[in-house]
This record gives sequence, C-alpha cells and structure tokens, in this order.
Amino acid sequence: MMKVAIFLLFVVLIPSQYTHAQSCTIDNAINLMIKSSTESLVSSVLSKVKLDCTSVSARGADVSCPSGYLATACACGMACGSWDIRGDAACHCQCANIDWTSARCCKTRVVG
Amino acid sequence: MMKVAIFLLFVVLIPSQYTHAQSCTIDNAINLMIKSSTESLVSSVLSKVKLDCTSVSARGADVSCPSGYLATACACGMACGSWDIRGDAACHCQCANIDWTSARCCKTRVVG
Amino acid sequence: MMKVAIFLLFVVLIPSQYTHAQSCTIDNAINLMIKSSTESLVSSVLSKVKLDCTSVSARGADVSCPSGYLATACACGMACGSWDIRGDAACHCQCANIDWTSARCCKTRVVG
Repeated sequence: MMKVAIFLLFVVLIPSQYTHAQSCTIDNAINLMIKSSTESLVSSVLSKVKLDCTSVSARGADVSCPSGYLATACACGMACGSWDIRGDAACHCQCANIDWTSARCCKTRVVG
Repeated sequence: MMKVAIFLLFVVLIPSQYTHAQSCTIDNAINLMIKSSTESLVSSVLSKVKLDCTSVSARGADVSCPSGYLATACACGMACGSWDIRGDAACHCQCANIDWTSARCCKTRVVG
Repeated sequence: MMKVAIFLLFVVLIPSQYTHAQSCTIDNAINLMIKSSTESLVSSVLSKVKLDCTSVSARGADVSCPSGYLATACACGMACGSWDIRGDAACHCQCANIDWTSARCCKTRVVG
C-alpha cells in the first residue's frame, strides 16, 4: 500500500504540478525575453533608417542621379525653373540652350 | 529507511538538479532563437524601407501630390523658379500667368 | 526487486520521455511566440518610418534647414531657378540681387 502511494505520488501528482508551474514560469520568462529583445530592437532599427541626399551636376540640359538614388528636384542654369524628372532619377531642364543642369538625389540608407 | 531514501532522492535531489540544468539549457536555446530571429529580422526590415517618388503636373499655378505623398520640390512653366509648398503636399508657382505647375512627390514605402 | 523496478522507472524511463516530449513542445511554443512577436513587430516597425518635410524661407540668397533635416530642393525669388545646395542642408540662389530664398527640408521620422 505504501509503495502504491509513493508510485502514484511520483507518476501523477508531482509531474502534473511540476509541469504546470514550470510551464507558466517558462512562458513568462520567454515572453519577457522576447519583449525586451524586440523593444530594444524596435528603437535601434527605427533610428537607423535615415534620408541620404547628394547633388550631381552636368553640362547641358540633362543629368542623372547615381544608382539607387531618386531625383527629388532639379536646378537649371540661366535662371530657368522649368524642368521635369524622367524615369525617377534623371533631370531635364526645358529652357533653350541650357548651360548646366543639376539633380538633387535622395534615398533611404541604414546608418551605424 | 530505504523507502525514505528513495523518496528524498526523487523529491529533493533529482528535481533540483534536473530543473537547474534544464533551465540553463532552455535559457540559452531561447536566447539563441531570439537572437537569430531578430538579427535576420533587422536586416530584412531595414532594407525594405525605400523612398518612393512620383511627379504630378497640372495646368495653372497649383497642383497637389497624391494622398500619402509629400512635395519635395516644384517646377513651373515659363522658366519660373519662384514657388512655395502649401500644406506639405501642394505646389504653387508664384510667377504671373503660369501655364503649368508640377510637383515632385515622395514618401517612404515598404518593398517586397 | 519491486523497488529496483520502480527506481529504474523514475530514474531512466520517465525523465527521458518526459524531457524529450517537453523539449519539442517548448521549442514549438517558443518558435510560435517569436514568430508572432516578430511578424507583428515587422509590420508595426515598417509603417512607423515616415518622411517628414518642412519649408524654411529667408531674405537674401541663402537659407539653412533646421537641424536634422536635409535640403531636397530650393526656390528663389525673382523667378530664379538656378540654385545649389551646400553641405546637404543649405540653399543658395545664384541669380543676382535675390530677394528671398526658401529651402524644402526633409528627414525620416518615427511616428506613433
């Protein structure tokens, strides 16, 4: 009778309580670990995405941004303010006999 | 006496060692899993945020960017380079009798 | 003999099966927790990076963007469309006797 009682104690009661308590503890610990990992990750990730801009200039009425950049604006010689952007990354000044054209080129980049 | 020894063995000694060793192993495994998940996540997330630009043009001295875009520059007909941006997303050319106005419009977008 | 059988049962058989089954269950649970955490994180992170633009204007031929912003374009008084950006964040209008200069200034920012 005593043996059966000990047998039942180990096979049924202790594992079930032990597993239940351990499961909660582990769940909470994992949730805390994931939460702290992702929270620090979020702030570090978000602050790493920055705008990166550069300017290019060329003789004539056309100039293209470096690869990976998009044109956000164009400037033209001869005081001309009439321009258009072709294919997302190339500036074209529309006034006649333009001497120079420049493009302002931007992209997002990851810093640090 | 023998029964008490076995009882103590299971209730005190084995669970404590077993739990301790398992806890360390699980902690390390979870940390590795989180680390590898978040590291691959960081690089995939950062490379997905891109600049997205488009141009819109209209007759007259005013034009607005599509919803969600901000104006980064304006261009005007008649060689005019005097303009201002109203409410973040609308271009207005200031020269008299402007025939056309265009806006360069950008936003961040998620690719892939 | 009976005692030895029970002893072996607890020391060898039950822990090994118990540990193995629990390990798989925990692994799967952790993977699910990480996956769900990171997936919701990805979408929330990506949608938080936004373009933020503002305009500044000043008398004369030069104006600078606020700290942290980059110039994406310049506009000039007197219909002048010839300008250049100096040091990433300052606009300079090139026509003679310019009365005003404005800069369009953008950066990425985290919303919400």
